[in-house]
Amino acid sequence: MTELATSIFEAMWIAGILAFAISGALVGVRHNLDILGVLVVGVATGIGGGIIRDVILGVHPPVSFMVWPYWTTALVGSFVVFFIHPSLTKIRRFELVFDGFGLGIFSAYGAAIATEAGFDIMTCIFVGTIVSIGGGVIRDMLINDVPGVLTRDMYAVSAILGASVATVITRLTGDMLIASIIGGILAIALRLTSHARGWNLPKPRKVTA
Amino acid sequence: MTELATSIFEAMWIAGILAFAISGALVGVRHNLDILGVLVVGVATGIGGGIIRDVILGVHPPVSFMVWPYWTTALVGSFVVFFIHPSLTKIRRFELVFDGFGLGIFSAYGAAIATEAGFDIMTCIFVGTIVSIGGGVIRDMLINDVPGVLTRDMYAVSAILGASVATVITRLTGDMLIASIIGGILAIALRLTSHARGWNLPKPRKVTA
Amino acid sequence: MTELATSIFEAMWIAGILAFAISGALVGVRHNLDILGVLVVGVATGIGGGIIRDVILGVHPPVSFMVWPYWTTALVGSFVVFFIHPSLTKIRRFELVFDGFGLGIFSAYGAAIATEAGFDIMTCIFVGTIVSIGGGVIRDMLINDVPGVLTRDMYAVSAILGASVATVITRLTGDMLIASIIGGILAIALRLTSHARGWNLPKPRKVTA
Repeated sequence: MTELATSIFEAMWIAGILAFAISGALVGVRHNLDILGVLVVGVATGIGGGIIRDVILGVHPPVSFMVWPYWTTALVGSFVVFFIHPSLTKIRRFELVFDGFGLGIFSAYGAAIATEAGFDIMTCIFVGTIVSIGGGVIRDMLINDVPGVLTRDMYAVSAILGASVATVITRLTGDMLIASIIGGILAIALRLTSHARGWNLPKPRKVTA
Repeated sequence: MTELATSIFEAMWIAGILAFAISGALVGVRHNLDILGVLVVGVATGIGGGIIRDVILGVHPPVSFMVWPYWTTALVGSFVVFFIHPSLTKIRRFELVFDGFGLGIFSAYGAAIATEAGFDIMTCIFVGTIVSIGGGVIRDMLINDVPGVLTRDMYAVSAILGASVATVITRLTGDMLIASIIGGILAIALRLTSHARGWNLPKPRKVTA
Repeated sequence: MTELATSIFEAMWIAGILAFAISGALVGVRHNLDILGVLVVGVATGIGGGIIRDVILGVHPPVSFMVWPYWTTALVGSFVVFFIHPSLTKIRRFELVFDGFGLGIFSAYGAAIATEAGFDIMTCIFVGTIVSIGGGVIRDMLINDVPGVLTRDMYAVSAILGASVATVITRLTGDMLIASIIGGILAIALRLTSHARGWNLPKPRKVTA
């Protein structure tokens, strides 16, 4: 990649961390945690997916600890949310949007990085999916909710879509940046559209006795 | 091991993944998750224990991502459960049986593999136990239940029994296959019998003021 | 370090494991788990933080599995708690104190070890903090509580304080033992004092509609 492309790529990752951190901090505010609780949930949500990725791929210690702009971004984003946040009646909508952006960016970016690192197709899709849903699972489990990936409309589908598109485009063109942008936009679009339109996947038949 | 023994050994592991995936998918159906929620819980339960093992032992990336028959088995098993499953009044019994089979197979197989890899006795028993309870813990925590290992009759005892027997037999005879089969059968038998008979371990004295 | 200092340092770590194991076993007793459930929560709480540290730093398999005094301490401590524990009206106070000791020791010790291993300042503070809150998070999530780190007075602040002080002193003097003792005492003091005095951090503004 050119230097410019690398910078944009890095900025995307940081934007994803920020989006997830904001979603986590908003959840913390909604649960009326104190300031450090809000910061812990925000930072864990922002960098959690990346840490899971590094633990799985064997990058020690995780990049998120070593590269200070990552955790700083998550920390500052959470801090700002603590002081400036929407009223409780509107907060869930904001959570949804920021979570959707984090999901889209991380799924595509994670898959593109894994492809560039030479893993096979399915591993890359797995990695992108796990990176993108990992932070949200940590957030939801910390505050004792069933993770959104299990219950929300098209959540996992959006993550898999973003990761798959980014993997295929990176394979075909070698351009991680374009791959991440297209995969990310598709994932965000599917997630937010499916929520707005109430699209849902089929549920199991209820067989009673 | 002979080629035949190796094939049987591999088939056992896949049977364990399938059993756990079915147990996870059944829990998803019971909680009325949509199809992708059912698949996520099923796959996470099926391959979760193996991923925990690899993360702990430092196998990167986890074998469960790289070897496609593993995750494919978990995926197909969960998919089938979504369409074909018992009525809600009987579903818990099926969960119990499949979970018991997964528990037994994973505890013995995990301990045998670790012994073959040269770890000391206690580490092998730990690894077998963690592999076998890991998937179930992930399943139960995802849907916000207290993990069965903490509450169900003789759950952890069965896992430790299977892992211990398999470790000792592998050490003494060097035959991982026989060790896994005997350890696995004992663990499954103890788990299911203790449930059927209502065997339970002692509880703490209640000391009120 | 001299041989004596090394022994004291090792004894501190084991004291931390014991304190956390006791806190976990007490929670298990309070939730009326059976004896193996109590042991599982106790051991997981006692050695959980160390396992998280090793997984993150890439120590395979985790030291807590290989060094038998660690898990034996956690096991014996939990076993004793099962038989000898305070009445249910007083049990939460004991949980608090043992958890506080574990928190303080682990935060300082974990940070000192990481500093000695050559990681940069922020990584060391992260590691100390994660080691010290990890066991408690595992304990609380296992029994389906929102982790204390999110809700309890000055919990995370105490962990960060202990880790920061120990990191700085180890950097300046090279003496891990003194660093751990001072950092640990400060963390325990802050945690217990803030509980006793009811010190709390600010909560988010409630903005309703």
